[in-house]
Amino acid sequence: TPVTSRSRMPSSAWKKKNVTKAIEKKFKLYGFDEILTPTVEYTGIFTLKSGEEITESMFAFKDKGNRDVCLKPEQTVSTARFFIENFKNFAMPLKFYYFCPVFRYDEPQHARYREFWHLGVELIGSNTPESDAEVISLAYCGLKQLNLNFELELSNIKVIKGVLNSTNLSRGDKEKILHYIDKHNDEGINEILKRTDNGEILNKVLSFKGKRGNLNELKNIVRNCPEAIEGIEELENILNFVEMFNNDYVINFNIVRGLDYYTSNVFEIHANDMQICGGGRYDNLIGLFSDKDSKNDKNKGVPAVGFAYGFDRVIEALKAQNLIPKFENNKILITYVSEEFLPYCIKVAGELRERNITADLDIMKRKVKKAMEYANNKYRYVIVVGKKEFEEGRITLRDMESGGQKFLDVGEIEPLCWIYSMNRANLISKIWSW
Amino acid sequence: TPVTSRSRMPSSAWKKKNVTKAIEKKFKLYGFDEILTPTVEYTGIFTLKSGEEITESMFAFKDKGNRDVCLKPEQTVSTARFFIENFKNFAMPLKFYYFCPVFRYDEPQHARYREFWHLGVELIGSNTPESDAEVISLAYCGLKQLNLNFELELSNIKVIKGVLNSTNLSRGDKEKILHYIDKHNDEGINEILKRTDNGEILNKVLSFKGKRGNLNELKNIVRNCPEAIEGIEELENILNFVEMFNNDYVINFNIVRGLDYYTSNVFEIHANDMQICGGGRYDNLIGLFSDKDSKNDKNKGVPAVGFAYGFDRVIEALKAQNLIPKFENNKILITYVSEEFLPYCIKVAGELRERNITADLDIMKRKVKKAMEYANNKYRYVIVVGKKEFEEGRITLRDMESGGQKFLDVGEIEPLCWIYSMNRANLISKIWSW
Repeated sequence: TPVTSRSRMPSSAWKKKNVTKAIEKKFKLYGFDEILTPTVEYTGIFTLKSGEEITESMFAFKDKGNRDVCLKPEQTVSTARFFIENFKNFAMPLKFYYFCPVFRYDEPQHARYREFWHLGVELIGSNTPESDAEVISLAYCGLKQLNLNFELELSNIKVIKGVLNSTNLSRGDKEKILHYIDKHNDEGINEILKRTDNGEILNKVLSFKGKRGNLNELKNIVRNCPEAIEGIEELENILNFVEMFNNDYVINFNIVRGLDYYTSNVFEIHANDMQICGGGRYDNLIGLFSDKDSKNDKNKGVPAVGFAYGFDRVIEALKAQNLIPKFENNKILITYVSEEFLPYCIKVAGELRERNITADLDIMKRKVKKAMEYANNKYRYVIVVGKKEFEEGRITLRDMESGGQKFLDVGEIEPLCWIYSMNRANLISKIWSW
Repeated sequence: TPVTSRSRMPSSAWKKKNVTKAIEKKFKLYGFDEILTPTVEYTGIFTLKSGEEITESMFAFKDKGNRDVCLKPEQTVSTARFFIENFKNFAMPLKFYYFCPVFRYDEPQHARYREFWHLGVELIGSNTPESDAEVISLAYCGLKQLNLNFELELSNIKVIKGVLNSTNLSRGDKEKILHYIDKHNDEGINEILKRTDNGEILNKVLSFKGKRGNLNELKNIVRNCPEAIEGIEELENILNFVEMFNNDYVINFNIVRGLDYYTSNVFEIHANDMQICGGGRYDNLIGLFSDKDSKNDKNKGVPAVGFAYGFDRVIEALKAQNLIPKFENNKILITYVSEEFLPYCIKVAGELRERNITADLDIMKRKVKKAMEYANNKYRYVIVVGKKEFEEGRITLRDMESGGQKFLDVGEIEPLCWIYSMNRANLISKIWSW
């Protein structure tokens, strides 16, 4: 059995490819260009700022040159290194996207393997709220075009951090509670809240759910925490630009992200009880990779914002919402009980093709049963022509997904396929029909 | 600096993607379906049969579960494991293709990094010469469509092995000489030949270069080595089916492949002094992964044939032969010395677009110099409109690749772009124009 991830059968590799294509097209439309960085990186670049949770779960080892290396656990840190080594003198902003496997030695979770795919973008060199808005819009649109139902949750980590900093909690407790918030560990949160003088405010912030219009009441609650006020205002600023997702979001300060490098606005997308996307602004990460000795290093404070889809989970969510057809296409295989019906079958094939339905004749002259076996997983439908079909000038259409059969006029097939497609909304016609 | 491989800039990631697309399309046309298997595999599956050279250069380590794992050094063994675990009861043949990074801790060579991409196919379950012919044809056509110049070399490892087995050489010497042949180490070969009674025959076989018509003379030379005769006949059999590459090949028994699992016909493709493709038949590999205890395991002898392109080298060869345009497209950026010329520029943009030439106006209203910087690496051409251009109703076209400029009528631009494309043969129109 495989070590890190489920292998993908031909029957699912095309699903991955088609969804990728649709999302990459959207990335390109927003002006992001693809980059590819190595799978193996020096361990040190991740221990700088990725946070304990990730560094503890890295596939780290010594290579034959005795260097400490690892399989990259995420792409953003690699992108920061890549940027500093290759692009630091380029005109800003730079817009990169990537699609690559990342590796974490976690307990396997639902739709999460130890090797999984991150598909995401980084917008480097701009700290305007428009940049955050563009990136969040892209994360939203990339999934919306697939007709997926999901929830976009916006946050700003300064809010919780500001409130925490106004309490008497120890540094260790602050780190712990952030971790518990990220993991939805209410027990852990309450345990630590008992030790603070300011638990009520924190509780109110954590239980807040709302839209832009509700932020004023929150500002009142945290009026004594300037850092929290700043965070709320940063969030308000980006909400001026997010026509794309309109009112389809919720503000939730429980979103604190597990990664240590985020500095401001952060967001997550959830579907079917899975987090399928996460991102935010990280204005201090790139500076860590710039040349410390250079006095005028303009990269010290390069701002950046990005996100990554957990691609395997996006596929799981699409499946759960019945948005991925079982078959790559609606191809039909035409089989016959006896060779004497072959001319009639050729006529049927011609009629179907005229209606733009892909139809193959079983040129191997197999028995129907053998032909069915052959068609399994390859064809959406099989047509069977026997004596009755031939004499009545009709056909028997077998749905290879449900196993159901219908005795039909050839002319009835088109609407049937069409209805099948409509059930899967626009997805088939927009993305799958190639 | 990166550990295993060069990072790919946006300026080269699209080259990789476009070449991949063209080759994958060909794979699909031949009926191969994509699979994806994990990057990390148990080390043991490669030590079984991949050969010393590969196993010694593996990125092998212990994971946190103390298991011996490695980054896969090639895909064929992974595919064999994948097949046994998932498909052994499926109707044969099965046709898979893959595109994945593989890892070897070698001395870096030209266009070969420690992480590099294999793009290849495996045809599993058929031992007919047609299968070999189909796979070799595909390897050939996949590259030919790119207009690449290359040499296809065919061999059958039974020929050299048969001759070696008819000598008095020790087993160690036989293994050594195979390694030397693979590495073109003439000195090493001669050293061992001194120790054999049968060196003359081996020398004749190694210096043989020819086509199918020349194989009879070779048969005469090795007439006392039945295994070698068998190998030559297997090669003759596939040459009955290879209309695709017609006479465009050479038989060369120096092709012995570094991998231990090949059993019969093997082949390589070379271009610009690089091996860019290798493959062959491996009829015993899959059996190694089947259940040893099962008495009637029909997979014990599953025959298979496949190949992989060394993808980074394919790209290098395309570059060396000037077959990859520097730019993804022939886009033009229109800039102006002063805003008063903007209406004229809008007119020029309209005329170009009518001729299907992508033209962007510099909507940022940058100075020409700034606009040039912006256009660098993004646009193939820049149009500059100043007083002279405006008054004479012409434009200045700057070639961002050569840096040359021409003062032209707008109508002259189209043929210029067209000539540019033609210089790069059909490649641009067929593959790059999107």
